[in-house]
Amino acid sequence: MASHGNKSEEEAAISEAPNTPISTIVIIIAMQTEALPVVNRFQLTEDLDSVFPKGVPWVRYRGVYKDLNINLIWPGKDSTLGVDSVGTISASLVTYASIQALKPDLIINAGTAGGFKAKGAVVGDVFLAADCAFHDRRIPIPVFDMYGVGLRQAHSTPNLVKELNLKVGKLSTGDSLDMSPHDESSITANDATVKDMEGAAVAYVADLLKVPAIFVKAVTDIVDGEKPTAEEFLQNLAAVTAALDNTVTQVIDFINGKCLSEL
Amino acid sequence: MASHGNKSEEEAAISEAPNTPISTIVIIIAMQTEALPVVNRFQLTEDLDSVFPKGVPWVRYRGVYKDLNINLIWPGKDSTLGVDSVGTISASLVTYASIQALKPDLIINAGTAGGFKAKGAVVGDVFLAADCAFHDRRIPIPVFDMYGVGLRQAHSTPNLVKELNLKVGKLSTGDSLDMSPHDESSITANDATVKDMEGAAVAYVADLLKVPAIFVKAVTDIVDGEKPTAEEFLQNLAAVTAALDNTVTQVIDFINGKCLSEL
Repeated sequence: MASHGNKSEEEAAISEAPNTPISTIVIIIAMQTEALPVVNRFQLTEDLDSVFPKGVPWVRYRGVYKDLNINLIWPGKDSTLGVDSVGTISASLVTYASIQALKPDLIINAGTAGGFKAKGAVVGDVFLAADCAFHDRRIPIPVFDMYGVGLRQAHSTPNLVKELNLKVGKLSTGDSLDMSPHDESSITANDATVKDMEGAAVAYVADLLKVPAIFVKAVTDIVDGEKPTAEEFLQNLAAVTAALDNTVTQVIDFINGKCLSEL
Repeated sequence: MASHGNKSEEEAAISEAPNTPISTIVIIIAMQTEALPVVNRFQLTEDLDSVFPKGVPWVRYRGVYKDLNINLIWPGKDSTLGVDSVGTISASLVTYASIQALKPDLIINAGTAGGFKAKGAVVGDVFLAADCAFHDRRIPIPVFDMYGVGLRQAHSTPNLVKELNLKVGKLSTGDSLDMSPHDESSITANDATVKDMEGAAVAYVADLLKVPAIFVKAVTDIVDGEKPTAEEFLQNLAAVTAALDNTVTQVIDFINGKCLSEL
């Protein structure tokens, strides 16, 4: 079979440009409640002449901040049910469509997450993910098992972590808000500190199209704690999005004027 | 918030054209073993000048058969691990990208599936799905729970079912080959006869972009039977793909020259 894609050529294109400051970023945020504080903070405006196809609920907010073209992509409300289009499928689709339309230098996936107190997470913590993997894609056939887990490294950001004094942990992604015993085993195998519903999907598509990605995740609920996840999540959502907004702002301020290799 | 997309306009476009024969079809098949018999049967050729972005492993086979432009899209081998890019994320992405690039009149998602003997499935059966839903997206918050299940009807095909004497059943989709107790509860709630790893994802994207879709699923293993799924799946894969190929061929022959409303 013929070779599809030309990896070495694309890798060369990236490695040739390590000293160009980051210019265009795409921030992917799954929920409106998480997205609006960032939209307001950077005075982004909704793009009414959509770069996305007719019919999709995906919303792009855009603006210029210092030397950065900021695009915040929210997958929007499900057109039938009216709830945020959370989860891996919408996240994959908007990541793909955003990369195609906007050709970003960097993707930032920001959002809330469950945290594990056994791994040091506290409600209100904001983590930068070292890597992402899936915990609900079990395919017990050799090699397919690794495909299912889909482990991918985040873009390396040692200076960002140091400067902002961020907590770093592994992120595990699945399409359920709760955690079944099977999910728990996989999350343990993934050595995850935080659990979300989008990260590893964004990482998959970003890796496919060779765009660096980082993951900023704020803890709304403690998965291995006493309170039911859905209840704790809804209770803390508004307060924790403020912490998320603060960190995203600091990250963007840090990124401004820097190259990918300086992060 | 401004309205995104214009549903009534697109629905009108579809309803205005009920009497135009189907011209372009996209067949989405996740595994090479499932795809190649259909490729050979219709003498489709690989499109080396890809309509997809550089770097993605997605493969388009194309050809003309009677009055139909046939495109068979296979998500290809994972570029790192070398296994077929199965599951909902790849299926969503190729469905999206194929609709954008090829503007099909109809999508056919064909592939193998697990079957439930309690619902009448036997190894080698080929089912047409009446509807698709997810069984591994548990979000226990009102309305989000329904979003997670993501139930979508297949395009109605009463004449096709009658003419080909096909079995009809509900399809439940998840990213695991095995079935956890939580998955089992959801599959029961979905009243599913067959279980796959792509269908509801293809249905989601097809519905988003208002392209009719049908689902042809051949049973490789009995989920509620004695044998371990992975073992039974691998044992029967080659034989069952022959049954799948036969039915896909009959479906295409039936579709040729007909309008969507005549299926």
